[in-house]
Amino acid sequence: MAGRIEARLKELGIALPAGSTPIANYVSYVTMDNTVFVSGQIPRWPDGKPAYLGKLGGAISVEDGKKAARLCGISLIGHAKAACGGNLDRVKRVVKLGGFVSSTADFVDHPSVVNGASDLMVEVFGEAGRHARFAVGVADLPANVCVEVDGIFEIA
Amino acid sequence: MAGRIEARLKELGIALPAGSTPIANYVSYVTMDNTVFVSGQIPRWPDGKPAYLGKLGGAISVEDGKKAARLCGISLIGHAKAACGGNLDRVKRVVKLGGFVSSTADFVDHPSVVNGASDLMVEVFGEAGRHARFAVGVADLPANVCVEVDGIFEIA
Amino acid sequence: MAGRIEARLKELGIALPAGSTPIANYVSYVTMDNTVFVSGQIPRWPDGKPAYLGKLGGAISVEDGKKAARLCGISLIGHAKAACGGNLDRVKRVVKLGGFVSSTADFVDHPSVVNGASDLMVEVFGEAGRHARFAVGVADLPANVCVEVDGIFEIA
Repeated sequence: MAGRIEARLKELGIALPAGSTPIANYVSYVTMDNTVFVSGQIPRWPDGKPAYLGKLGGAISVEDGKKAARLCGISLIGHAKAACGGNLDRVKRVVKLGGFVSSTADFVDHPSVVNGASDLMVEVFGEAGRHARFAVGVADLPANVCVEVDGIFEIA
Repeated sequence: MAGRIEARLKELGIALPAGSTPIANYVSYVTMDNTVFVSGQIPRWPDGKPAYLGKLGGAISVEDGKKAARLCGISLIGHAKAACGGNLDRVKRVVKLGGFVSSTADFVDHPSVVNGASDLMVEVFGEAGRHARFAVGVADLPANVCVEVDGIFEIA
Repeated sequence: MAGRIEARLKELGIALPAGSTPIANYVSYVTMDNTVFVSGQIPRWPDGKPAYLGKLGGAISVEDGKKAARLCGISLIGHAKAACGGNLDRVKRVVKLGGFVSSTADFVDHPSVVNGASDLMVEVFGEAGRHARFAVGVADLPANVCVEVDGIFEIA
């Protein structure tokens, strides 16, 4: 069925961001054969502004961190869509997510935060959304966001 | 020779952990063609409890950090075995390890810590165990463990 | 045209480092089919000594961090050259860079630092140099350098 994943996104009430214009000599994604490498995404509000500023273990709660990671995941899917020429049904598998959580030196629940992105992938892609991943705590992130997630997708 | 790597593991006295049940919407590994992406592994005692809690440059010595990284490596090999349908002789190459070391802000010997995993790969797989890698110092890690290592394997 | 990229390097006044001898059970790069995974590179002076020691947000300015990231990029290209049997014209695409910036807990401009490596890739490889990437802030790095960058290259 064509547009199966788009229909699922609509069902979930998820609007993908418009493609962003890269502001440097890197790009949002690179496709090599059937593998799409998507650049690290930070959480952004619908107007494009960085969202959820601060650190886990500091100003940001685990619940908010999870919402932020979900926003990263939405951006990842947006770029995967572009890599698929607009047809997300071509995504065969979410292969891997890399989760970087900005945190104070004593935070220990990175997995719960990154689950915001992981859960989204399974909501949207079903079994094909299950992926390998890592979740680690970093010192800080661009624009002071609390989480950054990159991804690898297999496409048909 | 079938079971060559299993024999080598026995020789080294290394018992692989039983396959873990993923507790979230991510999985321990994803296989894409001949590439296996294994999720970030934390050190665990044989009963599954997180091992070596604390930071390098803090409560954890380089020697203990190295032992912890070796435990991560054992888990990586355990998941690679599952990806190979139980036959580790199908591992053609350990392609890459990513080493995240939880450390205080002035620690500088991450390579020695991650060597715990790197050395294991060569002990077990010989020349095929030599891999690309990175070793960096993060702010903190899940469950307060001192190191997390993910991996990419090429299988036949 | 053979040696196109070498000519470009000469034009840019960039001398690649001689291949380094790995000091542990990991190697500088692993080639799997047409993909080259290069290990995390730290900035080094021409004599091989670690360069630009300290942290962003601390002793290291963004400008110096950028120069350091460029040195990481030069090392990456040096290893990519070895992976290509000496012929950099075989590089089809710089696929991905991973940028780890050693920083104090309130630094927010990691992208500008990692641009030192990103800009280099496009200077050297042109459009084929545009890559996916992440840029994150870590607690500390080997030898106290301020940045470490790893890379994935597609070769012909």
